[in-house]
Amino acid sequence: MSYYSEPISKLIHEFSKLPGIGNKSAQRLAMHVLKMNSEDVKNLADAIVEAKEKVINCSTCFNITSNDPCSICSDIRRDQGTICIVQEANDIIAIEKTKEYHGLYHVLQGAISPMEGIGPNEIRIRELILRLQKEDVQEVILATNPNIEGEATAMYISKLIKPSGIKVTRIAHGIPIGGNLEYTDEVTLSKAIEGRHEI
Amino acid sequence: MSYYSEPISKLIHEFSKLPGIGNKSAQRLAMHVLKMNSEDVKNLADAIVEAKEKVINCSTCFNITSNDPCSICSDIRRDQGTICIVQEANDIIAIEKTKEYHGLYHVLQGAISPMEGIGPNEIRIRELILRLQKEDVQEVILATNPNIEGEATAMYISKLIKPSGIKVTRIAHGIPIGGNLEYTDEVTLSKAIEGRHEI
Repeated sequence: MSYYSEPISKLIHEFSKLPGIGNKSAQRLAMHVLKMNSEDVKNLADAIVEAKEKVINCSTCFNITSNDPCSICSDIRRDQGTICIVQEANDIIAIEKTKEYHGLYHVLQGAISPMEGIGPNEIRIRELILRLQKEDVQEVILATNPNIEGEATAMYISKLIKPSGIKVTRIAHGIPIGGNLEYTDEVTLSKAIEGRHEI
Repeated sequence: MSYYSEPISKLIHEFSKLPGIGNKSAQRLAMHVLKMNSEDVKNLADAIVEAKEKVINCSTCFNITSNDPCSICSDIRRDQGTICIVQEANDIIAIEKTKEYHGLYHVLQGAISPMEGIGPNEIRIRELILRLQKEDVQEVILATNPNIEGEATAMYISKLIKPSGIKVTRIAHGIPIGGNLEYTDEVTLSKAIEGRHEI
């Protein structure tokens, strides 16, 4: 039995479907909506619908964008000879914030994961290969996540691309800045030792 | 500079205004909205607008409801002689879940807090007094929160009502069930000792 009247239960139900929002948080959000003024409520609802309607995937790199091609693909000042492969559009934001990278991107929209039934054909690898055949690319940087799926995906793509002579690199793994050797897990630590370089 | 296209930044901005949603969570929610199918997105947006439009406050107890009077006030099987005073409509849900209480409620919609400029006139105390004059009430249970504002509010209401001869009670404070004496803060522990009863 629900103790809430129907429109509230419905809203709580909708909120609780969102990631990271449990039942308690959903209740709290629903109560907050009731306290917001009508204009703010409308703005929130409109922003949700509008984002879904207007945001598409760039047909070149599969980044999320409201214009196709996206602002990165259409920026001629960027290095057209380097493509950084990421799993999700959000990863582009993280890399852009470093201001260290000025090349292009390719969003796989996932990683190879046999457990979840995601094979090479479910992510945008075919599109990447087509891009590499059309565009003049010197380097492909594999920036998939440092976990089993990300590593497997990086390995798969690397084997596909290497025969074409394009330089394939993988982002470095190691101890994060501000990290502590004592509390670093052994896999990270062994990656850090493996990836040591002369200074 | 925002790395997101405008509809996404806007949605992230709207999400981050919600309680408990920081910038990272807002980004995650926005990304999730983009991945949801259009129908689910519409349901979410509609539920938000509809809850705001249809949900009102009960004119008797100020509980949130889509019908006035609310389902509790209009339930004649409930004990009409007992009113439980709570700060927020959500507190009613918490008490109803115990299935221990069968009286009516009165939602103050806040607590007295001089720091936030909330005096007795900003919360529904006047309406409570009018109710007590009209209805035949034997007991008022003060179930405001056990913090400074809640205690002050309980004290204030108790002083207002007592002269009328209505029994005024306060919910018990003490160690929560499943709690641990060693890790109980001293205020709770002293309340628990103060509130001891013969067994």
